[in-house]
Amino acid sequence: MARKETSRHIRQTGDYCFTYSPFHRPIAEVRPGEKVVVHTIDAFGNKLKSPRDRATELCHFPFVNPQTGPIFVRDAAPGDTLAVTVHRIDPDRDYAVTALIPQFGALTGTRATATLNDALPEQTRILPIRKGQVHFGRRIRIPYRPFMGTMGVAPQIEAINCLTPSYYGGNMDCVETCPGHEVQFPVLVEGAHFFTGDAHATQGDGEITGVACELAARVTLSFRVIKGQAIRWPRILSRDFIMVAGSARPLDDALRIACVELIDWMAEDYGFDRLEAYHLLGQVVQIRVGNMVDPNYTVVAKMPRKYLNRRGRA
Amino acid sequence: MARKETSRHIRQTGDYCFTYSPFHRPIAEVRPGEKVVVHTIDAFGNKLKSPRDRATELCHFPFVNPQTGPIFVRDAAPGDTLAVTVHRIDPDRDYAVTALIPQFGALTGTRATATLNDALPEQTRILPIRKGQVHFGRRIRIPYRPFMGTMGVAPQIEAINCLTPSYYGGNMDCVETCPGHEVQFPVLVEGAHFFTGDAHATQGDGEITGVACELAARVTLSFRVIKGQAIRWPRILSRDFIMVAGSARPLDDALRIACVELIDWMAEDYGFDRLEAYHLLGQVVQIRVGNMVDPNYTVVAKMPRKYLNRRGRA
Amino acid sequence: MARKETSRHIRQTGDYCFTYSPFHRPIAEVRPGEKVVVHTIDAFGNKLKSPRDRATELCHFPFVNPQTGPIFVRDAAPGDTLAVTVHRIDPDRDYAVTALIPQFGALTGTRATATLNDALPEQTRILPIRKGQVHFGRRIRIPYRPFMGTMGVAPQIEAINCLTPSYYGGNMDCVETCPGHEVQFPVLVEGAHFFTGDAHATQGDGEITGVACELAARVTLSFRVIKGQAIRWPRILSRDFIMVAGSARPLDDALRIACVELIDWMAEDYGFDRLEAYHLLGQVVQIRVGNMVDPNYTVVAKMPRKYLNRRGRA
Amino acid sequence: MARKETSRHIRQTGDYCFTYSPFHRPIAEVRPGEKVVVHTIDAFGNKLKSPRDRATELCHFPFVNPQTGPIFVRDAAPGDTLAVTVHRIDPDRDYAVTALIPQFGALTGTRATATLNDALPEQTRILPIRKGQVHFGRRIRIPYRPFMGTMGVAPQIEAINCLTPSYYGGNMDCVETCPGHEVQFPVLVEGAHFFTGDAHATQGDGEITGVACELAARVTLSFRVIKGQAIRWPRILSRDFIMVAGSARPLDDALRIACVELIDWMAEDYGFDRLEAYHLLGQVVQIRVGNMVDPNYTVVAKMPRKYLNRRGRA
Repeated sequence: MARKETSRHIRQTGDYCFTYSPFHRPIAEVRPGEKVVVHTIDAFGNKLKSPRDRATELCHFPFVNPQTGPIFVRDAAPGDTLAVTVHRIDPDRDYAVTALIPQFGALTGTRATATLNDALPEQTRILPIRKGQVHFGRRIRIPYRPFMGTMGVAPQIEAINCLTPSYYGGNMDCVETCPGHEVQFPVLVEGAHFFTGDAHATQGDGEITGVACELAARVTLSFRVIKGQAIRWPRILSRDFIMVAGSARPLDDALRIACVELIDWMAEDYGFDRLEAYHLLGQVVQIRVGNMVDPNYTVVAKMPRKYLNRRGRA
Repeated sequence: MARKETSRHIRQTGDYCFTYSPFHRPIAEVRPGEKVVVHTIDAFGNKLKSPRDRATELCHFPFVNPQTGPIFVRDAAPGDTLAVTVHRIDPDRDYAVTALIPQFGALTGTRATATLNDALPEQTRILPIRKGQVHFGRRIRIPYRPFMGTMGVAPQIEAINCLTPSYYGGNMDCVETCPGHEVQFPVLVEGAHFFTGDAHATQGDGEITGVACELAARVTLSFRVIKGQAIRWPRILSRDFIMVAGSARPLDDALRIACVELIDWMAEDYGFDRLEAYHLLGQVVQIRVGNMVDPNYTVVAKMPRKYLNRRGRA
Repeated sequence: MARKETSRHIRQTGDYCFTYSPFHRPIAEVRPGEKVVVHTIDAFGNKLKSPRDRATELCHFPFVNPQTGPIFVRDAAPGDTLAVTVHRIDPDRDYAVTALIPQFGALTGTRATATLNDALPEQTRILPIRKGQVHFGRRIRIPYRPFMGTMGVAPQIEAINCLTPSYYGGNMDCVETCPGHEVQFPVLVEGAHFFTGDAHATQGDGEITGVACELAARVTLSFRVIKGQAIRWPRILSRDFIMVAGSARPLDDALRIACVELIDWMAEDYGFDRLEAYHLLGQVVQIRVGNMVDPNYTVVAKMPRKYLNRRGRA
Repeated sequence: MARKETSRHIRQTGDYCFTYSPFHRPIAEVRPGEKVVVHTIDAFGNKLKSPRDRATELCHFPFVNPQTGPIFVRDAAPGDTLAVTVHRIDPDRDYAVTALIPQFGALTGTRATATLNDALPEQTRILPIRKGQVHFGRRIRIPYRPFMGTMGVAPQIEAINCLTPSYYGGNMDCVETCPGHEVQFPVLVEGAHFFTGDAHATQGDGEITGVACELAARVTLSFRVIKGQAIRWPRILSRDFIMVAGSARPLDDALRIACVELIDWMAEDYGFDRLEAYHLLGQVVQIRVGNMVDPNYTVVAKMPRKYLNRRGRA
């Protein structure tokens, strides 16, 4: 990772914003095609440094999951699509951090799924990263497979806390926003007001503890504007798949959104009849649960490109 | 309704805001104890005037459900509770309007519960209000029982579209925010930034069509600040009940929030042991479904005051 | 309660059945029009007699919520509707019993909403019934408003545990199956194989603790067969309302079933156009949450009869 | 597929049963260790043979998804675990069949998620199977990757329709019940009363159309009884993973069940502390959505064995 970086760097400002928003002044402007390195701090604002540090003492909603942004993308106007390619994610330190936070996670009562049971105990774990492996305890080594937990653009008239994923992207916590993939967002305000943060060294499906292997990182990105193409939900493209990320509660509705949007995409761009696309998805779609812990849950529906080869007609 | 009104009037400004937000400059300031008349336009911005008018042509998300506000309440500071008494709701015209809007409502596929089925047809109905009755068609007369569909305060750092109810109140669409009741909100920013709008002449439980009998109205309110009392979710007080309004998806989670908050209230203010309060609620709680159509659904849990008489101890 | 009863009595047999089922031999046969008194034991099999008795020690799934039945109703054939009028419910003892059962209830992790949190403590409460009041603790007196928590018929080829409500009725735990009301079920097997049990002295909406004021009772019923009318879900008729009870998870789906079936009923029997019925329900429907704790949740949608007077046409 | 089969064959009887049930007389008895070939017909009872055949005309609930069974497994007693190894699944004909069925599937209103929208049109597709490929239309070829959609045992006192998956297994429609894997079930009645059917030539995650590539097949199985080991939910073991299949609605609850049971398994058999197992799952668990269309939805949680190597202690 010692390669010489000649790209422009965009750093977290002291006054980093906690909302995807059109209200905040952009901290940088990029041109389509330009490659930039965005520096991000971790979801805890880099405050957890030892197993004795407690998120409930050091971090307070809504001041969590800080993002780097807004980044103004030239030429991006409402009605366009912003396509962001993730080139690489380099750790900015030699450890990740994870935690169990009371009343947060998929297997505990939470503020939304309110119960009267006692909360689970709080735990913080520091996970060294060495030679491409995340060390979980003394014996377990998990491959370093980084992705950006949060990537998104500003909604049209709202400022949304950075824990909530939705049609504008945001805290999707899905492993597919990773190096080599292109992530597309609807442009809703002039310049798109792109944000990213919340790098993860790795994560299980669903992020069921509510916290992945949280990382401060430098993410290398480039931007592309697709003029006049309005999309409704984030799309992800890889060599082998076209994908849609839907976010809602419960998981059922997130899955429905992702699949219906994927079908509409196949109809619009690949010549499929809608019902035929549905019928085919029933046999070949792959479903990936991004998170089941954030204010909206995220599900990614994946269509293998190999079935789209000949303009998709079955 | 010809009584002389000496209260101060707060009118909808031309540049009315569509978000509960700390970003917008207050349009008025009120003192605790002061009685004011707030003028509100209907959820369609008063644009539907005949059965031929179509919401899908005239109204566009997120520019819907306009509110009157922000109203700055003197002395209200973060950590306090804002208590708003609804004295009366007077119709500002002689009809209500309701509609079926494609992809919106509880009994159809929607943007969130995405399906491939064809949408239901769009319909607009103008409902004359005469002698305390809402005329639905030629023969059906429904009693005029008005309430404010939307009442809320600004979140701390966000600007939220006015369709979404949550811990800050908002578009709860519950019949309990009506004349004679006091509605309490957590104060999250200096001055609370209170908003209201979306008057309903009447509504069924759950607002299952997505649209009630929508009204332009003048609502008479007074404000009270409870210093140093931080609440987590909106509370409603009537002569016979103490109530909590929880908002989430699915309905299950909205119900859980409302009941757990009600139990905590009974523990904090009425001397109940939490499990005893739970046990009692199991036998006497009343549940009212506010809406099952907004981005969050709202459920009101109601505890009869008669069981709280002697400091609640069972 | 000293009135002379001349009706035939049907008693719980020692070998009482725990399933709604066509597999079990009927314990009695009734004629349409005949009035009978059915004796039922409580949901715990009458085993909890003191606050020291524990449901987790004395009752074991699936041997819970015992029913009295099957009762063979003469003339009832598949495709018919069985209409059961509840005339009165007399307590068979001078107390009700309620309990908190670990991993059961709406405000705790459960077997279905599985969490890692410690369970809530178990509690049993004996509630004396005196002069029409249920004594909850020393000071709280709740009016005696009895209903049958469980009423149903056998499914066509299944035997279902008596905790689960569905299209065949069953453990709906809704307060509307009470004296003065008629409850209708689809007949799915010859003779209907009617069951009832689980009397409740009173209950809060949602039965959120999982347990109401459980009672051993004698319920006076009469039966009517509506030949050739096939219904899909249980209906309830009172003087003021027609109602449908839908059961599913989450609550959203139970509400949807109840409302769609109510609309279809208004279309079939009262001359409404379906969309007009939907539109009207949006303004006047009443929603009652039966239970949010059983394997399916139950929601009752209620249409005031006054809006149906003139063949419903709006 | 011309290999000589010397195993005993168990054929579908004319009077095949449609319920997992202890009420039906076993059609065969097997010994632990014995390898048998079970013949199964497809979920439509082999009735759809051309694109003109309609499931709504030829198949009627609850007489759908016929199983081969009950198979009595010698030595299997309540409290034991039945482990079934799937050795191979051979198609019994040269085509699979799939369909769109009105009011059934994840992306349409259904009987449970009841809507007023018009149903989607019905479609039947015959899919030739040639050289290990399922031909979907003229150009799309999907690899033949067969699994049994339904495998289960009888519940203790119930007879359950064969569409419903739950703790006894059943219609889980998850791709992991495939050749090379061992599937474990709790034994709830003497002899276990094992059933299987509903072979699928392949299927997308979630089986979102409600119907996979349905197959008549011969499945080669062998049985093992683990005495005195009581499990609560089905487990699946492969070379690389240990897995639990949870079934519930909504998907959230199915995921919760699968993950909590997996954690308990790691605690019981691999020496993990429960919270440590949870913490690890957050980083490495894989989630597979079996179906989101049956009366319960099924989610499989998968733990890579490589992290369990050294008795799992982190």
